[in-house]
Amino acid sequence: MSLLTVGTVAFDDIETPLGKADKIVGGACTYISLAASYFVDGINLVSVIGDDFPQDTLDLLASKGVNLEGLQVKHGEKSFFWAGRYHADMNSRDTLDTQLNVLADFDPVLPESYKTSDFVMLGNLTPDVQMRVIEQMETRPRLIAMDTMNFWMNIAMERLLEVLKKIDCLIINDEEARQLSGEHSLVKAANKILEMGPKYLVIKKGEHGALLFYDENIFFAPALPLAEVFDPTGAGDTFAGGFIGYLAKSGDLSFENMKRAVIFGSAMASFCVEKFGIERLTELTPLEIKQRVSKFVDLVNFDAQL
Amino acid sequence: MSLLTVGTVAFDDIETPLGKADKIVGGACTYISLAASYFVDGINLVSVIGDDFPQDTLDLLASKGVNLEGLQVKHGEKSFFWAGRYHADMNSRDTLDTQLNVLADFDPVLPESYKTSDFVMLGNLTPDVQMRVIEQMETRPRLIAMDTMNFWMNIAMERLLEVLKKIDCLIINDEEARQLSGEHSLVKAANKILEMGPKYLVIKKGEHGALLFYDENIFFAPALPLAEVFDPTGAGDTFAGGFIGYLAKSGDLSFENMKRAVIFGSAMASFCVEKFGIERLTELTPLEIKQRVSKFVDLVNFDAQL
Repeated sequence: MSLLTVGTVAFDDIETPLGKADKIVGGACTYISLAASYFVDGINLVSVIGDDFPQDTLDLLASKGVNLEGLQVKHGEKSFFWAGRYHADMNSRDTLDTQLNVLADFDPVLPESYKTSDFVMLGNLTPDVQMRVIEQMETRPRLIAMDTMNFWMNIAMERLLEVLKKIDCLIINDEEARQLSGEHSLVKAANKILEMGPKYLVIKKGEHGALLFYDENIFFAPALPLAEVFDPTGAGDTFAGGFIGYLAKSGDLSFENMKRAVIFGSAMASFCVEKFGIERLTELTPLEIKQRVSKFVDLVNFDAQL
Repeated sequence: MSLLTVGTVAFDDIETPLGKADKIVGGACTYISLAASYFVDGINLVSVIGDDFPQDTLDLLASKGVNLEGLQVKHGEKSFFWAGRYHADMNSRDTLDTQLNVLADFDPVLPESYKTSDFVMLGNLTPDVQMRVIEQMETRPRLIAMDTMNFWMNIAMERLLEVLKKIDCLIINDEEARQLSGEHSLVKAANKILEMGPKYLVIKKGEHGALLFYDENIFFAPALPLAEVFDPTGAGDTFAGGFIGYLAKSGDLSFENMKRAVIFGSAMASFCVEKFGIERLTELTPLEIKQRVSKFVDLVNFDAQL
């Protein structure tokens, strides 16, 4: 089934305790689309770049089955840029620089062929842009998932709440869930958020795994314990891409299949952090992904003998 | 099979965001023994108290099948006392007061009948006391498990390393594992710690679950997502008690059974935090425990369909 992805396609400067990389390709939509490309063909990408963006990355995306018709290229302008430095624990980071550039006045325009996409993944962007995408859909997608962040809760909460009413699945991290709900307990937070619109909620806890909430059901997927995390950038977006990619491939929205999607998303994220930027996501094989998912099975599988 | 438990039997003052309790019964060995009592009869408790300790708690322990022959009562002296205050996140706490009292010169003396116990759980105490217990065993227990803390790593590391060579299973939290190994990654930390003596290592991550390491195998058990954590005091000891109690009941040291023991330990810990102090651990039924373990199965169970 077809998948529409929206978000930044951008440059990052990244500093981690294990190294430094300048002006490498990043952006939520890049990670989402690459991760999803291992599961589904016909990814309809919506984003904006300047004319400073490398052609070989665009060629790479196209070779992975990503449709770039919805990618606006602003001539004489620069792509979105973010610079950050991770702390020793790799869990927290400081933003050193943010240059909106082409993102400042981004107005997403969906090509005709995008407007009937079956699945939609709204990466972290202003709620206005996310709403603009939803409004252009001609048929109601089978599932609209979205990411957001604390920043939009601080400056555009009202609009964010409007968008939440239009979507099916919210994918955020634990701190965002706490801020959005005003509850510290993630169980209480989830109950409140599920009343704001989405039917499904995924709370990402980084190295501590992810929780899927649906109705009264809770599913927990661990993160794979890794000896070395090289660069956490994009892990959350990669999770989202693997998750929605797996759902779009199977077209199955049962809770059992949602659980599998969370595991596949977690598996994709575990690859992402092994190298800087998107590198690891450009070179995976289906066998590697299958073997990685097997590790998740081994990690949590037990027979309770009740 | 018989289980020897060693650790504090004590008083706690506890302050959490949800309430305050003064001079309630606590202590590692109290939690360990109570949790284990749901799985195994014939628990041989070794500890020391003053004559200020309530008789009804001793009667309770005895009624749960805990043998108190190895509990020294020092007349005219006071029991060990700890006071602490939990932060809003319930994950961190400040120690407000510690009064060693009877613990200052505690010399554990094992009654004859204890010296052939099949399983041993050494709660957090000075490495010297832990070693003294091991040395008095007449037959090698099938499994010696122990807890320790950063404090002993700071002031008695050498002795601690000697004890580690004598035991089979170390049960510590993530910060302790990091300090003991000097590694931030828990996978690297585990590899180093498993070279220090123990064959099995459990790393407790509080609300983020627990990891079991054995050889090249890793098993992860989640913590149950709870709407309300009332008091985290004793949760780690309760985990240890449930873990070793389950092992002592079954007498099965296969990795598959160790996994189950981690789940049962996690289930017991999830009860512990529901009320202040030991209260919840005094009133459980086998059916409640079974139902709680079922929740863990539901929480992580998935069919990968690989």
